[in-house]
Amino acid sequence: MNYLYDDMKEKLRDIIEDNTTIKGKIFGYSIQVLIILSLVAFTLETLPGNSESTIQALNTFELICILIFTVEYILRIVISKQPFKYIFSFYGLIDLLAILPFYLKGIVDLRALRAFRVFRALKLIRYNKALNRFHIAAKIVKEEMILFFIITSIFIFIASAGIYFFENKAQPELFTSILHSGWWAIATLTTVGYGDIYPITMGGKIFTFFILIIGVGVVTVPAGLVASALSKAREIERENDLKKASLSNKTSQE
Amino acid sequence: MNYLYDDMKEKLRDIIEDNTTIKGKIFGYSIQVLIILSLVAFTLETLPGNSESTIQALNTFELICILIFTVEYILRIVISKQPFKYIFSFYGLIDLLAILPFYLKGIVDLRALRAFRVFRALKLIRYNKALNRFHIAAKIVKEEMILFFIITSIFIFIASAGIYFFENKAQPELFTSILHSGWWAIATLTTVGYGDIYPITMGGKIFTFFILIIGVGVVTVPAGLVASALSKAREIERENDLKKASLSNKTSQE
Amino acid sequence: MNYLYDDMKEKLRDIIEDNTTIKGKIFGYSIQVLIILSLVAFTLETLPGNSESTIQALNTFELICILIFTVEYILRIVISKQPFKYIFSFYGLIDLLAILPFYLKGIVDLRALRAFRVFRALKLIRYNKALNRFHIAAKIVKEEMILFFIITSIFIFIASAGIYFFENKAQPELFTSILHSGWWAIATLTTVGYGDIYPITMGGKIFTFFILIIGVGVVTVPAGLVASALSKAREIERENDLKKASLSNKTSQE
Amino acid sequence: MNYLYDDMKEKLRDIIEDNTTIKGKIFGYSIQVLIILSLVAFTLETLPGNSESTIQALNTFELICILIFTVEYILRIVISKQPFKYIFSFYGLIDLLAILPFYLKGIVDLRALRAFRVFRALKLIRYNKALNRFHIAAKIVKEEMILFFIITSIFIFIASAGIYFFENKAQPELFTSILHSGWWAIATLTTVGYGDIYPITMGGKIFTFFILIIGVGVVTVPAGLVASALSKAREIERENDLKKASLSNKTSQE
Repeated sequence: MNYLYDDMKEKLRDIIEDNTTIKGKIFGYSIQVLIILSLVAFTLETLPGNSESTIQALNTFELICILIFTVEYILRIVISKQPFKYIFSFYGLIDLLAILPFYLKGIVDLRALRAFRVFRALKLIRYNKALNRFHIAAKIVKEEMILFFIITSIFIFIASAGIYFFENKAQPELFTSILHSGWWAIATLTTVGYGDIYPITMGGKIFTFFILIIGVGVVTVPAGLVASALSKAREIERENDLKKASLSNKTSQE
Repeated sequence: MNYLYDDMKEKLRDIIEDNTTIKGKIFGYSIQVLIILSLVAFTLETLPGNSESTIQALNTFELICILIFTVEYILRIVISKQPFKYIFSFYGLIDLLAILPFYLKGIVDLRALRAFRVFRALKLIRYNKALNRFHIAAKIVKEEMILFFIITSIFIFIASAGIYFFENKAQPELFTSILHSGWWAIATLTTVGYGDIYPITMGGKIFTFFILIIGVGVVTVPAGLVASALSKAREIERENDLKKASLSNKTSQE
Repeated sequence: MNYLYDDMKEKLRDIIEDNTTIKGKIFGYSIQVLIILSLVAFTLETLPGNSESTIQALNTFELICILIFTVEYILRIVISKQPFKYIFSFYGLIDLLAILPFYLKGIVDLRALRAFRVFRALKLIRYNKALNRFHIAAKIVKEEMILFFIITSIFIFIASAGIYFFENKAQPELFTSILHSGWWAIATLTTVGYGDIYPITMGGKIFTFFILIIGVGVVTVPAGLVASALSKAREIERENDLKKASLSNKTSQE
Repeated sequence: MNYLYDDMKEKLRDIIEDNTTIKGKIFGYSIQVLIILSLVAFTLETLPGNSESTIQALNTFELICILIFTVEYILRIVISKQPFKYIFSFYGLIDLLAILPFYLKGIVDLRALRAFRVFRALKLIRYNKALNRFHIAAKIVKEEMILFFIITSIFIFIASAGIYFFENKAQPELFTSILHSGWWAIATLTTVGYGDIYPITMGGKIFTFFILIIGVGVVTVPAGLVASALSKAREIERENDLKKASLSNKTSQE
């Protein structure tokens, strides 16, 4: 009987973990479609003026989704060769966070925890193979990204502290502290510029001028770095493919 | 007589389909100028306070344009070696959509269908050869673009759902549902920031901070990818040209 | 005497046209400083509440500047080997436009023509050698830039016409015609988003969503193309330098 | 005794100047943490509604920080082999500016000078090695950056002067002078667009259209240049590493 159980685990593994087989693909895409549908339901739920029947239908659908995701989560643990590795992996935690809030409803306050349901969206990335190139690119630019994150942080702090000294007296209710000025700094340096907070003194405007001339570049460069790293990753991928091809060619010629 | 008809078709093909002959070029550019003029007329038509005579003049010009475009459309079908392939091609459908609304005026409501006339603008791209490089670049970055589209979609959803939980209570008339918050998400992540909707709670502002730090890059990277793919496409083109040149050189030397 | 005149012309040419000699450099930088000072004076002139004496001082300085620029312009024509080529060159026209408004004061209305004085700013670029790399880069991306200009134009038109149909009924005073909607299109696609005009209908917002997802890339790609073309231009420059170096090396070895 | 003193200086140098030893790393990171904490304290200090005890605690912490930074500054001068080189170096001046305002409190007005404490944030960069690649990249794009800075300056001036002539009559309180219009120019060209100042005349809007079509690129290109220069710097670094590796390989083989 133990043999039968192992055999079934093997078969389930082919469906759930392996997405190269036909059965695995069907399973993978079904889960993806279900995730999208559950997110759509979640979005509709927040719309105002839903009728009684609509709310009931959405709740039922939510129940079915949670049930399927729970079964999927348990199966993934059972069939896994290293269950703990899966549980504490990035996707394992997301899988858990996607269902946990439902079970904690009774214990903790409902509204705050529902926010975690958003993470279900991240499960969508799970079944995508092309992500490999992104991992290579991430490795290439890792150091620069950290440095840019530090420089950006310093920059935002200098912008916040600077504008605070220029605008605090003129607009004390908006630029109340350096923390409050930070909201201006982030909205300005990312060039969003909502228009709810902006300098009105001549000093503050000239300060903004210099902050923007330097700062816009600081915020935009990382995107350029990622783009060029992705191009590099593509080249590395192609070179590896060529090497493999020439190797298998040599072997077959011998 | 059948022979004469085939001969005429061949001659028309030289004018309409082939844009390397002088006649073909004249025809091509005339159609382009007519498209631009019809778009200008379309724009003027929407201006308020047009006089009676202006409206009549614009209507007459519209009639002439539709007539010429209809003749062009029918000729393209008649002379084509594979009429159905043309009809269901991208440009074939645009050519049809550019004239169809006029003929459906009597049957369906006029205003809504006129919007399709906008697609006439896309006919402008038809006669341009340099687009080839764009097709190569599109092939290169296709996979990354799809992945980035998925990541951007997830990101917009997370941003919308997140800000909904932070701002819904403080500004229920603006952040009414996740769908309504989506309008904020798209205006913020693309850094447009109209200023009609923005977070006012401390939680919402801190959430926006993190969304912007990561999100601005996510939205800008694709543009960088397209730019580097176009550079790559230029290199491939040059290499192909060099290969051809060296090949023809060898042939002539032998 | 003719010989003396030619000799003087030759000497002046060394000062005015040649910016590799010491005298030429001094002349060049003096003119540049004068241009900047005249622009500063021009800016100060527009400030409200200038005292009588300030206005007089600025006017006197303006007179001196015009005098020097006029002498410079006449000298450039006189010493040039091909006077007409200079007069109708890009810099020749700017040099003329920078002084012309002053002499036309009496004849035509003053205010409108003063705008041309702005072009004096472009004279600043004249004396810069590093521009060469920009010319190479411009040649590399010329075709793509034209194509992107066409695509951007079509895109702006589609955006303007589309939003007009969605928003015209809801906000007739803002989205009055396709032309008026064009102001929204340009402010949105460049992500400036002043907040003076934005969609309020659900249809208009969804339309804006799609326009932004595609449009932001369309507007940002050209900048990426220019950046990568400048990198390419740098490589070409270095290769040329290496070729020259190896050539002169060979010659000296023989 | 002189020998003992020199020996102690040598030991201190290992801790303060050398960040490859364990002691040096501990010292370096401790200073970094202290800088961050002092900046946090500085931020908290500006918050409104601090209790008496909080203010006292923050002041005490400030005193301790200044004391430690002063000791560090004096030690750096004492142990340095070329004290004057350190004092007038970039980091030497920042180290001084970070403590100076405290000691000048009694003499000059306090509030304005405290802004210099922000520069302490720049000390954070001091202990980072990956900056090397940024220095290489900076060298590569130096010339282009200067040229772009000039072009951007000219562009901002033309935009300011142009919009002044279009909008001054319609909105004299906003576009008062070319200087005031400069605020519009910088907010528009960086695409921040707060919405506090924008053109309302048809001429001004059309002018903005052209300024934006060209200007957005001008402001975005430098970021792309920096990104591609950083990629280049990475390649140069790798090539140098390979050269060193092959050299040491040869040496060991011989």
